[in-house]
Amino acid sequence: MLYRDLIKLETEPGKRIDITKDVENVVKKSNIKEGLCNVFFPGTTAGLILNENDIMLMNDFERFFESFSPQNRLYQHAENAYSHIRGSVAKCEVTIPVSNGKLILGEWQNIIFWEFDTRDRSRTIVITISGK
Amino acid sequence: MLYRDLIKLETEPGKRIDITKDVENVVKKSNIKEGLCNVFFPGTTAGLILNENDIMLMNDFERFFESFSPQNRLYQHAENAYSHIRGSVAKCEVTIPVSNGKLILGEWQNIIFWEFDTRDRSRTIVITISGK
Amino acid sequence: MLYRDLIKLETEPGKRIDITKDVENVVKKSNIKEGLCNVFFPGTTAGLILNENDIMLMNDFERFFESFSPQNRLYQHAENAYSHIRGSVAKCEVTIPVSNGKLILGEWQNIIFWEFDTRDRSRTIVITISGK
Repeated sequence: MLYRDLIKLETEPGKRIDITKDVENVVKKSNIKEGLCNVFFPGTTAGLILNENDIMLMNDFERFFESFSPQNRLYQHAENAYSHIRGSVAKCEVTIPVSNGKLILGEWQNIIFWEFDTRDRSRTIVITISGK
Repeated sequence: MLYRDLIKLETEPGKRIDITKDVENVVKKSNIKEGLCNVFFPGTTAGLILNENDIMLMNDFERFFESFSPQNRLYQHAENAYSHIRGSVAKCEVTIPVSNGKLILGEWQNIIFWEFDTRDRSRTIVITISGK
Repeated sequence: MLYRDLIKLETEPGKRIDITKDVENVVKKSNIKEGLCNVFFPGTTAGLILNENDIMLMNDFERFFESFSPQNRLYQHAENAYSHIRGSVAKCEVTIPVSNGKLILGEWQNIIFWEFDTRDRSRTIVITISGK
């Protein structure tokens, strides 16, 4: 069985959105009890982080991103090269196991969408659940 | 067809465990000949590295991790922020093709679980194989 | 339904090959309309980047790779430690949703194979499509 749904997000530069519950809702709607849930962001200037949604930790991550892709560095690519690099480090996809109709996630493991682009964006996340 | 099994690990700070053979054993038990094998770690302070299990290379990786998330830096998040950051760079998931009942892996491509946390942990890896 | 095909690449150090159309051709040949497409590189010294195939951006990525894994640093692992580290940051695998017989990719999201090794290589990419 295959079930697909889309999650729509309105973002602004640097905005983080915890989509764990949205993804869990899609799993519930799918009625699939055992399988895999693919979370895919079709874009290049934002990313997915599976980690603890703690504001202090997220500030540490922000400094981590800034350390290797600073916003005020001169890049060849116009405007938002650092957004592309951060998106590529965070990655655009993760596949999570589903058991008993729920995502198997660690206690502190949240699915966080992080907007790295330099302007407000309308984003779509593609959720595909396969199983039975 | 869908087959799931768990791999249990006892870790300590910095410990690396090559789980390639454990995952291959699950593939064998599944009796699935052609498909995909999802390896998922439900946690945030350790990660999976698919690379050559050579002690000298792993020391180079350790220096690489230390360069962007040093253990002795002051972080906002208490205690183990660098564990979270390293886990997020290593990633918690990979999906590997299965052919003729075996993982398709490169000659030097091992599945290495790397404990980044600051204390001993009991870890579970979730293996989900789909196919026929 | 499950469909598998291989993409063969001849590379040289630093070479980037955009395989988006090759992967799309495999999806078309599979005749699978809805599902998931797993792109897997069985190796440790090259990687997959899903990003904009713009030469100026790729030069920015090259500088990004050089910043944390410089070619002229002394490593413990002989010869190509930086190739392994870059491959591990880029990752060897991504699973992309398929809809209406086509990959769901962002407008600027290309699948780029990046050779990080220090010599010419013959590479194989494993494409596995599941769905209906």
